[in-house]
Amino acid sequence: MSISSGIPIDRSLGYESAGVDTTREEEGLSRLIQHVQRTWPPAGSLGEVKLPVGYFANVVDIGGIGIAITTDGVGTKVLIAQMLHRYDTIGIDCVAMNVNDLLCVGATPVTMVDYLAVQKAEPDMLEQIAVGLCEGARQARVSIPGGEIAQMSEIIRGVAGGAVDGFGFDLAGSAIGTVPLDRILVGEHIEPGDVVIGVESNGVHSNGLTLARRALLEKGRLTLDAEIAELGRSLGDELLRPTHIYVAEALEVINSGVDLKALMHVTSDGLLNLTRVKSPTGYVIDFLPPPPAVFRLIQEKGEETEEEMFRVFNMGIGFCFVVTPADADRVIRIAESNGKRAYCIGHTTRDESQQVFVKPYGIVGRGKRFYRE
Amino acid sequence: MSISSGIPIDRSLGYESAGVDTTREEEGLSRLIQHVQRTWPPAGSLGEVKLPVGYFANVVDIGGIGIAITTDGVGTKVLIAQMLHRYDTIGIDCVAMNVNDLLCVGATPVTMVDYLAVQKAEPDMLEQIAVGLCEGARQARVSIPGGEIAQMSEIIRGVAGGAVDGFGFDLAGSAIGTVPLDRILVGEHIEPGDVVIGVESNGVHSNGLTLARRALLEKGRLTLDAEIAELGRSLGDELLRPTHIYVAEALEVINSGVDLKALMHVTSDGLLNLTRVKSPTGYVIDFLPPPPAVFRLIQEKGEETEEEMFRVFNMGIGFCFVVTPADADRVIRIAESNGKRAYCIGHTTRDESQQVFVKPYGIVGRGKRFYRE
Repeated sequence: MSISSGIPIDRSLGYESAGVDTTREEEGLSRLIQHVQRTWPPAGSLGEVKLPVGYFANVVDIGGIGIAITTDGVGTKVLIAQMLHRYDTIGIDCVAMNVNDLLCVGATPVTMVDYLAVQKAEPDMLEQIAVGLCEGARQARVSIPGGEIAQMSEIIRGVAGGAVDGFGFDLAGSAIGTVPLDRILVGEHIEPGDVVIGVESNGVHSNGLTLARRALLEKGRLTLDAEIAELGRSLGDELLRPTHIYVAEALEVINSGVDLKALMHVTSDGLLNLTRVKSPTGYVIDFLPPPPAVFRLIQEKGEETEEEMFRVFNMGIGFCFVVTPADADRVIRIAESNGKRAYCIGHTTRDESQQVFVKPYGIVGRGKRFYRE
Repeated sequence: MSISSGIPIDRSLGYESAGVDTTREEEGLSRLIQHVQRTWPPAGSLGEVKLPVGYFANVVDIGGIGIAITTDGVGTKVLIAQMLHRYDTIGIDCVAMNVNDLLCVGATPVTMVDYLAVQKAEPDMLEQIAVGLCEGARQARVSIPGGEIAQMSEIIRGVAGGAVDGFGFDLAGSAIGTVPLDRILVGEHIEPGDVVIGVESNGVHSNGLTLARRALLEKGRLTLDAEIAELGRSLGDELLRPTHIYVAEALEVINSGVDLKALMHVTSDGLLNLTRVKSPTGYVIDFLPPPPAVFRLIQEKGEETEEEMFRVFNMGIGFCFVVTPADADRVIRIAESNGKRAYCIGHTTRDESQQVFVKPYGIVGRGKRFYRE
């Protein structure tokens, strides 16, 4: 378990965390990955697995078509939904977490199934969750051909007491998409001097909610209904804002003919997601737009360091493209024509150790953490 | 929530429960399905969804290839694994629940991702769960190209106290397979007089564990380490026996050239799964092998009716094939050559109301329940 600032952080381990970390959990994960890889069929067979574990999605060769596949949940953001007793947007997060990952291997998302585990099968809650899933699917241009609802009062819990008692739930999904087998993108052609285009996030998205809750609600003693002037909305509304779905702009970039080197969904581990590429690439981030106000609030109330904030949160950049300098403006314009601000936030370096130097804050990311330079 | 014999049953609602039931939960589910269907692209588009909700899996048209997709979890069987502190087989159940469903639309399973939500990221537990997933994948001939582990101590709980405190988890998966678009099987060509071949189950599989635990552990005051002569093993070993994976025999039947009308995975709702076909088909089940001893024990200790036992459990038949009488022996031989006993258990009738008459027990299934005739 990651311990930082004395606060145990519930987090997603994905299957991505091979690497250098030596905690017991990462060790267990690494052993798990060893096992799982033994299930992969020999190269050339039906279902050949095209990528090692560690990228945002994997790709399976099905009759010459690359089927990208990924799975992810919304983590403890469900607790915010439950506390607010508002369930009609969390499905958007679930779709976002999955389709944004699919995009990162160059895939066009096609369809997804959801897995909803509930403490009690409350019909209004089920319907509201579906409303969000469908809105997410609409934004992501995918279908939801089915799903599973498991009622498990002995396994699922949530916030206890009050009107929301019994409305605990967990929400995850799995999505598939298509990518031509010769156009799977994992950043292997990144060269030093390529540029990083960062597209704005919408606040915390679906990562770091455990830290956010502890900082704001426990240490900061704020309540979700508190209207916070700098946020322009209530704290609850802010924390529940649905994760941006980057499908429209990413597909437009993928199909635009620009020399696209890599795409990254900025989830847990923040800008360290830039290192999930198949090349000895480091990054110098020399410009970042001012982080959304919610991050300042979390940092202040939780007395968090910037290293910790950047480790846990997206800090305002939810999705990145790596392209040649010549294509930078084009990608920014595509993002903006899809309603999202985008910025040239830095460039790549040749770096076997894949460090991410965040210059405006004087911190550098290595492995799974950021350090003050 | 289903209430039966005064015992609230935690159960999987799937997305299958449209139909006649009038509980609030089924109503919520039905509204959820309405929403979800609005995400489906127009016929003829990329990603066309080929089946309505309610079958064992759905099929999406991806460039002329039928990609079957499904998602399912192992339900409260995780509690048995936790109580026994033995995590190396529950992954087999997870694979089984998914691939057996894929088979039922005529698909060849190819790959699956798992979603594991844990109370704490215990490395040995993670590894053992992976061992089971990989053994399941081996039996099912699928790969596991990735997955997600979410550590959420505020949402996931399990059995509290003792050495297993903190080892709560939930395990689900999503699987995809391929099926030629013109060979999707949903039982639309079943004719009266076709026969039902039932393949043996391996005990409770992954359904009805909540009822089983209440009957055996609470009402019956048995313990998991109790050696039960009629089971030939301890109660814990019995309840944790991994769900049969029917991939080998089902694929052999699918590819054998027999006039295969339908395949059914017997999960929650027991033999009522026979009605998940696109035809006005009812069933007369006139022979069943003696149910595995565990079912007699559950029924006795829980003082359950046969109607209830058949509603919740597979009662000894884990998978069914519907074929013409001429092909019955061939299918039985294929199952047996794959190491599983199979029986001709009944035949189909023309029945708009899709009743399942289980003659040896004098009960009939209608909608979501069984009634004494």
